[in-house]
Amino acid sequence: MENLKGKKAAILATNGFEESELFEPKKALENSGAEVTVISPERGNIKAWRHGNWSKEIGVDITIDNASVNDYDCLILPGGVINPDKLRRNSKAVDFARRFFENNRLVAAICHGPQLLIDAEVVSGRTMTSFHAIRKDLENAGANWIDSEVVVDDKLITSRNPGDLEAFNRRIIEKMI
Amino acid sequence: MENLKGKKAAILATNGFEESELFEPKKALENSGAEVTVISPERGNIKAWRHGNWSKEIGVDITIDNASVNDYDCLILPGGVINPDKLRRNSKAVDFARRFFENNRLVAAICHGPQLLIDAEVVSGRTMTSFHAIRKDLENAGANWIDSEVVVDDKLITSRNPGDLEAFNRRIIEKMI
Repeated sequence: MENLKGKKAAILATNGFEESELFEPKKALENSGAEVTVISPERGNIKAWRHGNWSKEIGVDITIDNASVNDYDCLILPGGVINPDKLRRNSKAVDFARRFFENNRLVAAICHGPQLLIDAEVVSGRTMTSFHAIRKDLENAGANWIDSEVVVDDKLITSRNPGDLEAFNRRIIEKMI
Repeated sequence: MENLKGKKAAILATNGFEESELFEPKKALENSGAEVTVISPERGNIKAWRHGNWSKEIGVDITIDNASVNDYDCLILPGGVINPDKLRRNSKAVDFARRFFENNRLVAAICHGPQLLIDAEVVSGRTMTSFHAIRKDLENAGANWIDSEVVVDDKLITSRNPGDLEAFNRRIIEKMI
């Protein structure tokens, strides 16, 4: 099960990420042999959100100022209603996500995670899903939104919510091999 | 200062509303003589959000099932990153907001409040502002977004954040008289 040995994934998040949407992909990829780096505009720890409240923290490995897109095979964007709302206001976070598309690298976004991709202006013409609250925003940005546990459009993988994580993680691993 | 005697305003909100963005317009309108009704999909109390945490509660006067647009001269939509994200997923909340536009009544939205108006499909061609995180979503929905403490476009009043509340409240009162 060490299919991803030598592969590197970046998780971009800040305070208010949905707990399972960061920890579960991280665990799945590490169990497959990948190296996973938590990147954030914040230093130190960032705090998760779970069942409507703040929950546990995770350490930031690299701040976004020091991260280079070329170091990673894949970018993972967890949701949580608070986390992407903060990231999309940060031009470095928006640029970081955009460069994965410019460099034709894998991007996997779940729940509210795709909000950052609206600001990165990379969703027009893409078939994708998201948490249903932001469906209209993705459609208005030019996406073809569909209601499915996981949607793979070339190198863009999207899912709706924590209940889709098994399918989301499986597809990320398949595409990273 | 009883300019609004006999006037009625509805505040539509649910859990996660930005505390000041509900309580301050409510107080300003009541001080001017208006009757203010808190409407929500939820029964009982709804909980505010303040400085990144849950804060105080307010009682819901009428659930959305029992509210009629014709009873109100004005609709106020507070923000808070969590509150409009919940409301926009509720078709009754979306329809309630849309009917204020169809009936040519005053609507005042602040911060993330305009997210509900994207789902109500009423922002195209309107000049407005919002919390800057959702600027792109409003532009993609066809709005002409400008960065100003308060924007009045006919019967639509919008502001950016709690720092704009004084101007926001003043314009609501002026337009309700």
